[in-house]
Amino acid sequence: QPVTLINVFEVPEGKLPEAITYWEASRAFLATQPGFIRTRLHQPIAPNARFQLINVAEWESPQAFQPASARMQQEVSGSAT
Amino acid sequence: QPVTLINVFEVPEGKLPEAITYWEASRAFLATQPGFIRTRLHQPIAPNARFQLINVAEWESPQAFQPASARMQQEVSGSAT
Repeated sequence: QPVTLINVFEVPEGKLPEAITYWEASRAFLATQPGFIRTRLHQPIAPNARFQLINVAEWESPQAFQPASARMQQEVSGSAT
Repeated sequence: QPVTLINVFEVPEGKLPEAITYWEASRAFLATQPGFIRTRLHQPIAPNARFQLINVAEWESPQAFQPASARMQQEVSGSAT
C-alpha cells in the first residue's frame, strides 16, 4: 500500500539555498533506496507563506521508507561534516 | 502552469468527522470549477502527528483557483447555516 510522506519546513531567513541543497542531497540518496517512488519539493508562490518548503514524497510502504530515512540521516549528515 | 495547493489542518479532538465532511462538500463544489485538476486528502498514519488532515490539490493555474475558492466559501458556508 503506497504511502505519501509530507514534510513541511519553516526555513529561517537567508537559509533557503542551504535548505534546498540539503533536500537535494537527501533526495539523491533516497532515490537509490528500495521502495522509493517519487518526490517533489514545493515552494510557495504567495508571499509570507507559513512554510517555505514542503516535500511530498511517495513510497511503496512505510516499512520501505523508515530504514531508508535512517540510512539517509547517516549518509547526508556524515558528508556534511 | 499547473499549481499545487497544499492545506494543512490542525483539527481539534473529536472534530475530525465534521472536518472531513466539510472537506468533502468543498471538494464536490471545487471539482465542478474550471481549472480543477485533482485533489487528495491525507490523514496521518503515525500517532500524534502535527496535522490531522493535509489536502494536496492541483489546479491549472492560481488564477483558476482563487475565484473558485471564493465561490466555494459562499456555497459551502451558505449551505452549512
